[in-house]
Amino acid sequence: MHAPKDVGAHAQAAADILLRLRAKAPRVHCITNSVAQNFTANVLLAAGAQPSMTISPEEIGQFVAGADALLVNLGTFDRERAEAIEIAVGAVTAAGKPWVLDPVLIDRSPQRAELARTLLARRPAALRLNAAEFATLSGGKDREAFAVVHSTIVALSGPTDVIFGGGRLVSLANGHPLMARITAMGCAASALVAACLAVEADAWRASLAGLLMLGVAGEIAGEKAEGPGSFAAGIFDALYRLDAATLIERAKVA
Amino acid sequence: MHAPKDVGAHAQAAADILLRLRAKAPRVHCITNSVAQNFTANVLLAAGAQPSMTISPEEIGQFVAGADALLVNLGTFDRERAEAIEIAVGAVTAAGKPWVLDPVLIDRSPQRAELARTLLARRPAALRLNAAEFATLSGGKDREAFAVVHSTIVALSGPTDVIFGGGRLVSLANGHPLMARITAMGCAASALVAACLAVEADAWRASLAGLLMLGVAGEIAGEKAEGPGSFAAGIFDALYRLDAATLIERAKVA
Amino acid sequence: MHAPKDVGAHAQAAADILLRLRAKAPRVHCITNSVAQNFTANVLLAAGAQPSMTISPEEIGQFVAGADALLVNLGTFDRERAEAIEIAVGAVTAAGKPWVLDPVLIDRSPQRAELARTLLARRPAALRLNAAEFATLSGGKDREAFAVVHSTIVALSGPTDVIFGGGRLVSLANGHPLMARITAMGCAASALVAACLAVEADAWRASLAGLLMLGVAGEIAGEKAEGPGSFAAGIFDALYRLDAATLIERAKVA
Repeated sequence: MHAPKDVGAHAQAAADILLRLRAKAPRVHCITNSVAQNFTANVLLAAGAQPSMTISPEEIGQFVAGADALLVNLGTFDRERAEAIEIAVGAVTAAGKPWVLDPVLIDRSPQRAELARTLLARRPAALRLNAAEFATLSGGKDREAFAVVHSTIVALSGPTDVIFGGGRLVSLANGHPLMARITAMGCAASALVAACLAVEADAWRASLAGLLMLGVAGEIAGEKAEGPGSFAAGIFDALYRLDAATLIERAKVA
Repeated sequence: MHAPKDVGAHAQAAADILLRLRAKAPRVHCITNSVAQNFTANVLLAAGAQPSMTISPEEIGQFVAGADALLVNLGTFDRERAEAIEIAVGAVTAAGKPWVLDPVLIDRSPQRAELARTLLARRPAALRLNAAEFATLSGGKDREAFAVVHSTIVALSGPTDVIFGGGRLVSLANGHPLMARITAMGCAASALVAACLAVEADAWRASLAGLLMLGVAGEIAGEKAEGPGSFAAGIFDALYRLDAATLIERAKVA
Repeated sequence: MHAPKDVGAHAQAAADILLRLRAKAPRVHCITNSVAQNFTANVLLAAGAQPSMTISPEEIGQFVAGADALLVNLGTFDRERAEAIEIAVGAVTAAGKPWVLDPVLIDRSPQRAELARTLLARRPAALRLNAAEFATLSGGKDREAFAVVHSTIVALSGPTDVIFGGGRLVSLANGHPLMARITAMGCAASALVAACLAVEADAWRASLAGLLMLGVAGEIAGEKAEGPGSFAAGIFDALYRLDAATLIERAKVA
């Protein structure tokens, strides 16, 4: 869909978003599962954003109203979180701020898939998920048509990531196999997309930037890691040290 | 109880289980406490298994029905988890799959001890715990008799681990003192026992394999660590890189 | 407020507390948020204390009754925790043991601020918080007067920490900028203050010791870190290896 010149422009746009993220340090409110909370908060901090994580229905409205973006991750599906999600999506919509939906494991749970469909109707700026989760939502229909119908950008993670919607499509070949050996890596990718949305109104570009940052950081960490333990430490270090030139130089965008 | 030739056979059996674990990548559903969730999921991933962690009563039945083994850890004792445990044990029993009971800190909480007794009657394939927890359940009675009465295998962790039940007993002297300086190490041991049960029907052998893997990985990590931080990273790396030859060579089985 | 000779005495007192902490290995019960639980438990273990973390109203009373100190952190504000806090503060008061209040993010949530005020009236030995949180509680009034009215010691974290109350005041200039790039660092500081209170009746000295240990460990970790990932591993290692001489030598007390 793109001429080669676009490819360099995409990496450059992602680098600009990285710099704005560092400059603004946006606050991203995260409703996420208890397995992923600590890792997600630390990924945001390493990248230069500020996390807030409360899921209490009593107070989440205020936290989201003052945040720059919202992440809704369905990885823990309990009663309190369902109530919190309802309030948070209302608050972020009222504030005119962007949000990301991460429908974790909806392919294994009809209740989560049902909730994901309801939430999709409320117009997340981006939907970050894997192939099995996307198949559950799209029912195998044409993916660009799916994005158009739901007025969202889809950031599909896999060995090669694909970001599409609004007539644009790009694939990213960065990353490292050890990313699949650490829990909550996908959740962290969604959180970075939310952080990028806080500084970039174009959701397609923001999604690309979030996945590219994580993929490049993973690639750098993977070059020195001896396994998932040193890799986890290394990906935080790499995200923290990531600069615009490295992002552009290493981007495998096609 | 064993002639020396058995000892080599035990380490060999554990090495075979490690290889099957890597080949099958079984899914282990874990009901565990919020302190241990992330660490447990990452230990399973490092070893080659797939974790799933939901504790929501609404959906846990489906998650467990499709899993290869179940871990029930009592380290968080809240109302939702008690309900989830009831559903999960029913589902795993109906599916004919094995499960492990880890009765964390029942020596400090009569309510947990009561729940542990109820769960023990539902026949976990293995019971992984420490000496104080075992004393609470067994009341100081003969340990082999306890295992026989409850038709389970007991994997007793300590400076030296002891695995017994069904007329067999073995002790493992692997491990490292820094394992006691990281929270949730016992919970992770129980998760590895569950992962081994998913690929080995003999619960005594599976228990031995799970504890041996973690003990040897801990020993390797301890040789390079400067404290619990580098040790934690190192044990994930060591579990990930562990091969059959190393497991056999380092096994301190007696 | 102090002559120079006091400064050396403060560092010496902190070093004595560190040695008593290692010798006694006190149990600190922590009511803390799900983002911070694992990190907090590991910080306590690295320093030489024993964490217990249950927040279940059914059993927390027994856990706290047998503990040496209690931490109450308001970072997760859910219904079950509010009930657990009520029981735990009652139990610790009945047992005559000290507790620490950490009113996380009360500047963003009136409900949390309200709860913090109620808890402050129940006389925590120490209040560990940041400047924005303190301003919410004190309303900008004189800080020494605030401490006197509430009969507590205030441990105010920031680029320079300040500990005051009971007519004494000290500032600590240890620490490292990467401490702000890892979530739950403040929660961990509060947990260390609680651990020090378990071995030192003078809450001002205990608060100073807790913040000094973490600040010095952070400084050591920061000298070798390449980013927040290696820094997190390094701070656990440094806390574990910290000795009295290093604490005294590196203390930047004024």
